[in-house]
Amino acid sequence: MRRTVVAVVFNKSGVLSRITSVLNRRQVNIESIAVGEIDSERSRMTFVVKADTLDEVEQVIKQLNKQVEVIKVSDITEIPHIERELALIKVYAPAAMRHEIQAMISPFRADVVDVGQKNIVIQVSGAHEKVNACIDVLKAYGIKQLSRTGITSLTRS
Amino acid sequence: MRRTVVAVVFNKSGVLSRITSVLNRRQVNIESIAVGEIDSERSRMTFVVKADTLDEVEQVIKQLNKQVEVIKVSDITEIPHIERELALIKVYAPAAMRHEIQAMISPFRADVVDVGQKNIVIQVSGAHEKVNACIDVLKAYGIKQLSRTGITSLTRS
Repeated sequence: MRRTVVAVVFNKSGVLSRITSVLNRRQVNIESIAVGEIDSERSRMTFVVKADTLDEVEQVIKQLNKQVEVIKVSDITEIPHIERELALIKVYAPAAMRHEIQAMISPFRADVVDVGQKNIVIQVSGAHEKVNACIDVLKAYGIKQLSRTGITSLTRS
Repeated sequence: MRRTVVAVVFNKSGVLSRITSVLNRRQVNIESIAVGEIDSERSRMTFVVKADTLDEVEQVIKQLNKQVEVIKVSDITEIPHIERELALIKVYAPAAMRHEIQAMISPFRADVVDVGQKNIVIQVSGAHEKVNACIDVLKAYGIKQLSRTGITSLTRS
């Protein structure tokens, strides 16, 4: 099962290392992770994890909440929330193909953010599935490089 | 010094844990990290790290490249590249304030992605400094929650 877990932690050195080693010891696989600062003292991490049972995820969260650098860890999968991701995609695009590619990506509200001699770089953001769909469309043209942020999330108000 | 490091790795369990523990042992602080899948076999990670000297960063990269799960780690700070980040920001916004907030965020090409009774959620993406500037503008209204993906990056073609 796929679960979305959010951790608010203090910006202490080694905190990410300790969190990932707890997940690793418990055999919970991390599918994506995104970490950004809230302010100079705290960071917020969103993990998408894969586990065999809900109990495994609950055990991991209990253990993470015991760490001194951890302010709060919670599984937000069942709580209404927003998930967003950003991807940069470098695509093979000789000049003659660029109009066609532009037309293909415009329904995704994706933008061309860099143009080289042979390649262009496209930026797309949105829900995980939308980003996947945009990448799928671009595969036909030849993806040279792909970089995704991983999912970040907020609970709805 | 602040360096941007990219790692392409195999999607094996524990790989993130091993990478963060190498950084931790070498006293290199991770400012942000974003991890996303390239395909079912490989993931690409972008780290922004803080180190005292360039030599420290080079030592860490050398050590990371020795790990079996690591395909390639490189410091792209000096190479022309694109950096992008996404943030979700929940702001206190009673109905009377929403027009004003909308006007404030429109130069950042930020979008309102959720509306509640008292709060709205704003999505902004772009370079790290642009995301910081948008967050600064919104601080005056009262930020209730903030979630950033961390920086992802691609070298220019």
